[in-house]
Amino acid sequence: MTRTTIAEACETAIERTWFHLAGLALILVNAVALGLETYDPLVASFGPVIRGIEYVCLAGFVVELLIRFGAHLRAPAGFFTDAWNVFDLLIVVAPLLPGVRENVTLLRLVRLARLVRTFRLFPSLRVILVGIRRALPGLGSFLSVMVLVLYGYAMLGWMMFGDAFPAQYGTVGRAMLTLFLLLSLDGITDTLMTGREVTEWAVLYYVSYMVAACYLLTNLLVGLVLTALQEAHEEMAAAKQPSTAETQRLAD
Amino acid sequence: MTRTTIAEACETAIERTWFHLAGLALILVNAVALGLETYDPLVASFGPVIRGIEYVCLAGFVVELLIRFGAHLRAPAGFFTDAWNVFDLLIVVAPLLPGVRENVTLLRLVRLARLVRTFRLFPSLRVILVGIRRALPGLGSFLSVMVLVLYGYAMLGWMMFGDAFPAQYGTVGRAMLTLFLLLSLDGITDTLMTGREVTEWAVLYYVSYMVAACYLLTNLLVGLVLTALQEAHEEMAAAKQPSTAETQRLAD
Amino acid sequence: MTRTTIAEACETAIERTWFHLAGLALILVNAVALGLETYDPLVASFGPVIRGIEYVCLAGFVVELLIRFGAHLRAPAGFFTDAWNVFDLLIVVAPLLPGVRENVTLLRLVRLARLVRTFRLFPSLRVILVGIRRALPGLGSFLSVMVLVLYGYAMLGWMMFGDAFPAQYGTVGRAMLTLFLLLSLDGITDTLMTGREVTEWAVLYYVSYMVAACYLLTNLLVGLVLTALQEAHEEMAAAKQPSTAETQRLAD
Amino acid sequence: MTRTTIAEACETAIERTWFHLAGLALILVNAVALGLETYDPLVASFGPVIRGIEYVCLAGFVVELLIRFGAHLRAPAGFFTDAWNVFDLLIVVAPLLPGVRENVTLLRLVRLARLVRTFRLFPSLRVILVGIRRALPGLGSFLSVMVLVLYGYAMLGWMMFGDAFPAQYGTVGRAMLTLFLLLSLDGITDTLMTGREVTEWAVLYYVSYMVAACYLLTNLLVGLVLTALQEAHEEMAAAKQPSTAETQRLAD
Repeated sequence: MTRTTIAEACETAIERTWFHLAGLALILVNAVALGLETYDPLVASFGPVIRGIEYVCLAGFVVELLIRFGAHLRAPAGFFTDAWNVFDLLIVVAPLLPGVRENVTLLRLVRLARLVRTFRLFPSLRVILVGIRRALPGLGSFLSVMVLVLYGYAMLGWMMFGDAFPAQYGTVGRAMLTLFLLLSLDGITDTLMTGREVTEWAVLYYVSYMVAACYLLTNLLVGLVLTALQEAHEEMAAAKQPSTAETQRLAD
Repeated sequence: MTRTTIAEACETAIERTWFHLAGLALILVNAVALGLETYDPLVASFGPVIRGIEYVCLAGFVVELLIRFGAHLRAPAGFFTDAWNVFDLLIVVAPLLPGVRENVTLLRLVRLARLVRTFRLFPSLRVILVGIRRALPGLGSFLSVMVLVLYGYAMLGWMMFGDAFPAQYGTVGRAMLTLFLLLSLDGITDTLMTGREVTEWAVLYYVSYMVAACYLLTNLLVGLVLTALQEAHEEMAAAKQPSTAETQRLAD
Repeated sequence: MTRTTIAEACETAIERTWFHLAGLALILVNAVALGLETYDPLVASFGPVIRGIEYVCLAGFVVELLIRFGAHLRAPAGFFTDAWNVFDLLIVVAPLLPGVRENVTLLRLVRLARLVRTFRLFPSLRVILVGIRRALPGLGSFLSVMVLVLYGYAMLGWMMFGDAFPAQYGTVGRAMLTLFLLLSLDGITDTLMTGREVTEWAVLYYVSYMVAACYLLTNLLVGLVLTALQEAHEEMAAAKQPSTAETQRLAD
Repeated sequence: MTRTTIAEACETAIERTWFHLAGLALILVNAVALGLETYDPLVASFGPVIRGIEYVCLAGFVVELLIRFGAHLRAPAGFFTDAWNVFDLLIVVAPLLPGVRENVTLLRLVRLARLVRTFRLFPSLRVILVGIRRALPGLGSFLSVMVLVLYGYAMLGWMMFGDAFPAQYGTVGRAMLTLFLLLSLDGITDTLMTGREVTEWAVLYYVSYMVAACYLLTNLLVGLVLTALQEAHEEMAAAKQPSTAETQRLAD
């Protein structure tokens, strides 16, 4: 009997606006506390206070998680079907695990991961997420082409400049990093001029790379992201008006 | 009786083309005068003339404002419902207020603010304004994601480089500024190479940042601005042809 | 009688493919000759040959112009209604005018202007021209906003950095050039850091400028150019199929 | 009799998924082997192993090619109608040709060319290829305009800076390279400032170049690539649903 009562109470709580706002407030306060910890003078004078705030936030996360779990009390397995619930659980439980507990870096990363929860609570952020997810298949083949072009140019670069500039083109891995950074066109003039002292082919090599990778492929990326975003917008708009579609179906 | 007569005369004046053009001329002359004041040799020889032009412009603004107020004379409260009228009033009145009167910087800022009035008088500029206003909701969630990504990378950067480069990554605030400036990809090669001397993770850190923030998110921004601009264009086109829509409605 | 005969012969010639190809060949040969003249060793050994080629090209331009004029022989005034004809005439006549004849720089500019004729003869280039012409009204208001933003930031920059960096912000003109070059985000990190030594407001000043001018306004430009290009494409497509539209009209 | 049997067996093999996957695996293993060869320590200890892997891959390519040829055994000439088959044959045969056999660079280039085969086997990469092919006509006229603008500015640059900066503007070829690299806006501030010491026209020259080439033309490129990509997407979508179109045609 109590099980059903608790589950109902939890469900009611989750649907309330204050539950949502409290969740957001927890994340923001926690994020600010994490940020304040990077200011040494503040830590020196208010260290325990900041730590205390973080523990309160952690307690808040546990309570939020318990309420969410409570809503699934009639069928607890259903709780784990939502990937966000599993993610929240991991974030709360991870600092207690041996191996994580002693490692300052891992602990900090776990605490940082709590920022990701914002995406769960801000519905307007989901357009961006949906847009990125939509763009992934197109981005997959785009990245394949990009990697192919980078790899091909890296091999050519190694053949041309491997001996002259071992730090930049000594191995295919270094050459790929050099060419990836060159996508930003940062210092392209100097790079081309030093390359030209080795071989005149450097002009053709860098100019064709600029045209192919920096202009054509980068613009293709713009196009892919734009198309994906447009589809995401349409999807969100369609999801918002299911009733209209239904009404129309009934009218027919 | 005179009230209504004045109001009618003012209304007629406002609708005239010369009133509009005189307003634009005032702003332009005022802007040029402000600019000329930054040339020291000119100020030395023609300082009083430039000051005089600015006082004439100010008088012009007052007259324009009085005419606009005059048109509302039958119901003076209506004058304050238009935000532009309030803005114009503030710009004219502010230099007389104590606290502003003595402060050279504030006085200059108030005079500079008169440039903003151009948006009131150039209707073609409003497409841009409408486009920016349209983009705001989308930009809001975009900025949230941007700030989240910057904050997350700033915390990671502080953990990795906080001790090695205190000027760039000493606190989360400095790290966010460093990463924001890195969005321009200016000097990315040097930054990555110095970071690599601290830890090899720097390569993964900067390359993933370049892909996520500089390529994906910047392109998302292009998409959001484009969509907003398109909607602004359609809105302006629809606003221009209300009669067509009406005619159609009548035809039905 | 001969008048009409000549006019008819010229009209036939203009419509021939070889006339068009000869015109293009003349421009290309002339352009190559102009380029070769910049190589000092070539000029030393083949100077007279290059000069000769240029005179032959000039003769060709005169002949082309005479044929085009001949086609208008029945009503010579009609020749001057096409702006391209006037442009061609100016290019051929200008080197003979006193004042231009003696000035090496002006003569070179006139010869360079012959390159512009390519747009007359390459019809596929006109999509670009139509696109740019289409974009002009939108670009007009965009440029007004851009100039306003630049002018406003330049005035602020002069107030903040005028005394500290007279070379960059000493006058409003210099400040506008500095800010325009900053649109490229080239060396933004150094600029911000040196500005910060003067006042902490520099961070807000440069960060807001980056967001407003470099990200928002530059993306607006992308949007305006895209919209204009799309309209130009549709216009060209519509111009290509007038017969289809006509057929349809007849079918109705 | 055996001819037809072999042809049928080969055709069945080509349609199998494992044939496709084995082809991809060969390319990837081959690419990794090529990459590993650039790491000197690895070559020192495992050189013969890497070479062996490459020979196995080459054998695999030969087998794949023989199977593909086998499928055309009934009409061997049909094998050469697919450009990909000719390309594959060249890659396998080229290392055996005299002139290529002794030239390390050519041999390496041939082995590198095997990477291009990925486009044959990854169908999702073809959207990108189709997009680029679609963009070519538009890109053709775009490139003509770009070359014209570069050439015109290069001639102007040679006239203005030819004597002062022979390394950058000494000939029209060098000037075009300088201006092409300037498209990246890398170091624009320094370039303009040194140019200004020669003539004040440098400001107009570089600012107009930035606006025309870097902002207007680069954005036109974005537009052309976007339009082409959209058309490629629609073409691929249309190609996927020929049955729908057919059904509809039947329904009519």
